[in-house]
Amino acid sequence: MRGRRKLGRGVAVVGAGMSKFGMFSDKDSKYLFAEAFNEMLSTVDKGIDPKDIDALYLGNFTNDFFVHQGHWGPIISDLLGLTPKPATRTEGACASSALAFREGVFAIASGFYDVVLVGGVEDMSKRNTEEVTQGLAMAASPYEVKVGFTFPGVFGAIATAYFAKYGASREHLMNVTIKSHNNARLNPKAQFNVSIRDIMNQRIEKAKNKGEPIPAWRDEKEFLSDTRANPVVAWPMHLYDCCPISDGASCVLLVTEELARDFSDNPLYVVGIGQGSGKGLHAKEDLTYFEATRYAAQEAYELSGLKPEDVQIAEVHDCFSIAEIIHLEDLGFFKPGEGHKAVAEGLTRLDGSKPINTSGGLKCKGHPVGATGTGQLIEIWKQLRGEAGERQVPIKDLRIGAAQSLGGTGGTCTLTILERR
Amino acid sequence: MRGRRKLGRGVAVVGAGMSKFGMFSDKDSKYLFAEAFNEMLSTVDKGIDPKDIDALYLGNFTNDFFVHQGHWGPIISDLLGLTPKPATRTEGACASSALAFREGVFAIASGFYDVVLVGGVEDMSKRNTEEVTQGLAMAASPYEVKVGFTFPGVFGAIATAYFAKYGASREHLMNVTIKSHNNARLNPKAQFNVSIRDIMNQRIEKAKNKGEPIPAWRDEKEFLSDTRANPVVAWPMHLYDCCPISDGASCVLLVTEELARDFSDNPLYVVGIGQGSGKGLHAKEDLTYFEATRYAAQEAYELSGLKPEDVQIAEVHDCFSIAEIIHLEDLGFFKPGEGHKAVAEGLTRLDGSKPINTSGGLKCKGHPVGATGTGQLIEIWKQLRGEAGERQVPIKDLRIGAAQSLGGTGGTCTLTILERR
Repeated sequence: MRGRRKLGRGVAVVGAGMSKFGMFSDKDSKYLFAEAFNEMLSTVDKGIDPKDIDALYLGNFTNDFFVHQGHWGPIISDLLGLTPKPATRTEGACASSALAFREGVFAIASGFYDVVLVGGVEDMSKRNTEEVTQGLAMAASPYEVKVGFTFPGVFGAIATAYFAKYGASREHLMNVTIKSHNNARLNPKAQFNVSIRDIMNQRIEKAKNKGEPIPAWRDEKEFLSDTRANPVVAWPMHLYDCCPISDGASCVLLVTEELARDFSDNPLYVVGIGQGSGKGLHAKEDLTYFEATRYAAQEAYELSGLKPEDVQIAEVHDCFSIAEIIHLEDLGFFKPGEGHKAVAEGLTRLDGSKPINTSGGLKCKGHPVGATGTGQLIEIWKQLRGEAGERQVPIKDLRIGAAQSLGGTGGTCTLTILERR
Repeated sequence: MRGRRKLGRGVAVVGAGMSKFGMFSDKDSKYLFAEAFNEMLSTVDKGIDPKDIDALYLGNFTNDFFVHQGHWGPIISDLLGLTPKPATRTEGACASSALAFREGVFAIASGFYDVVLVGGVEDMSKRNTEEVTQGLAMAASPYEVKVGFTFPGVFGAIATAYFAKYGASREHLMNVTIKSHNNARLNPKAQFNVSIRDIMNQRIEKAKNKGEPIPAWRDEKEFLSDTRANPVVAWPMHLYDCCPISDGASCVLLVTEELARDFSDNPLYVVGIGQGSGKGLHAKEDLTYFEATRYAAQEAYELSGLKPEDVQIAEVHDCFSIAEIIHLEDLGFFKPGEGHKAVAEGLTRLDGSKPINTSGGLKCKGHPVGATGTGQLIEIWKQLRGEAGERQVPIKDLRIGAAQSLGGTGGTCTLTILERR
């Protein structure tokens, strides 16, 4: 690239919707996407006729593997009555719909389309755990899988490296988990909308009712330290460090900037987009950061003219608790090695100076892989518009929020920055 | 879309390369893509430093199913030394790399990038035929698969409908096959670079040498009519109506129009891009055309200001012989019901007035699904630059060529029009 990043036309978000995330034996991808689409329609303040949608971009990781059906672009296009308008699937593992969003931005910024629907869907829970683990492992580098790594192992190795380099410990990871659950408790769409304290108290209550020995947990950290309550998956990743298997869909409606007010009283503007690619663990000299995230952040900051400190809230890709800490550093919110301290100090809490994953994050909101990228942006949409209900952050003049996605072991990373004007 | 299609910045093709297409037990996706990339580098007249590439778009249908590895964007980015630059996979079944091309165009036209590599790869031959058939069937509509359709059956049904509506016959399909093989005979990269007449004569020679009864075929049509030589797959689709299973890769280099002459003495300009989505057979009232192709064509003609008669040569998606005939009509080259007659009259031959699939088409060049879209554009690149060797079409002032891709049962269709200036 010769010269500074720019876009030919501005792009705005004028609608956003998601299905509930969770494990649904009775809902397929079409059902889930319809749920997301219908909610999206209801959020377009001045209404949208689906016939005005010029194109669809759909993120999906691997429904062909998970539900034995591929080529989802036209299936969803047909579902929504959009045919013969174009429908393109994007895939970047867990960042798949973040890529759909970006392509929608390019399609509008190029001048070709005015109104583009972007979203994602994943239907993972119909397979057994072994098959889902196999499917997800295909997002990792081929070298990682060959030596027996699946994702908890990969992020376990990353956490171990982080601990060694910066003197962090499992307690720092627990801070992330506790915060995520506290936020998700206030998010009715979350897969686990319950706090760790509530889970702990429910267990104590249950033991009492059954006449079993009453666990001696005095607080959340004692609960999370008890391997009977929170077993090891791949040390130091315990059960509550890992996001769940989820089904779900999400979508947002993009329009060219000059049409934004035709659709919305309170549109958000896409001020930063960035994306990077990364090597697998085998080729990394340092496991404690993702070069792809740093590159994505650089692109997005360059386009927006903003600095990390200008971003007031963010959703980051906490597939594992350690990932959230590393992203905070890679995005420049905190210095390398300082992320775990910032979380410990409460800075990333709902009432902190830099609220992170107010939705509950992947850990608690759920992680239907292909739906996560645009799912994160829906939280930013709600917060910036002041529509986040009980979990609305108390920041005055909240204007700038960001969402960061990570695919695989940092193979694909994105950063999107939205602004309310 | 309100108003006429336009792009903010022009985009040019300045390099194009492909691997040999075929079945290679010893070449994986990385090997194949490297082969394509290296050839592409050699075609950039003034040279390109790979470090100048801003982003990669990669079409792949389903390597996760075929070779049990997904998330190919960063794998190929790493292979080419492009990390941490962004790498995005697009999927639209057999049109996957046509979508990569289109997203590359948008990324440049948007103003965000100047130099983008787009391509595709597929590695299909490592699985057995049953698995590949299952994998490919996932590109069809879910309703088609549920009632037992795989692709030869789908296109058999389409051919039957076409025959019934327009009075065509298997002989018309044979004309397509014979022409494709005649062209592929002149294409050293083709999987089957041999004419039907050569195959026929080889079989006769073999029978003679073995002292077996000598087949009485007097010409190609008698050979193709003999079900021992050309067995039925799904009537009226016989073996020689169907494209093969292939491994391969292809890529082209896109740059913003103003930089075109910095890279190439003879760049091609992207004047038309179009894409559409379509319903499955279950929802079609008429099987003899693809609404998605017609929509894609309309978009591409609208952007280019060109009419079908302005397109001098084209590569069309002949996954099955009948598909080539239908595309000729959907693209407006010939009226509905007239495509089979045009082929019979020789108009689509190398020396005809509208040469089609001069490469040999998917039928003979091969069809490594994800590599096909940009693979088609490579033939247009060669022809428009006068570099097609023995198969160079004898059209004076050859300037405008097009490539059309079809994914699934018309679920995704694209049309790209390139111009030499």
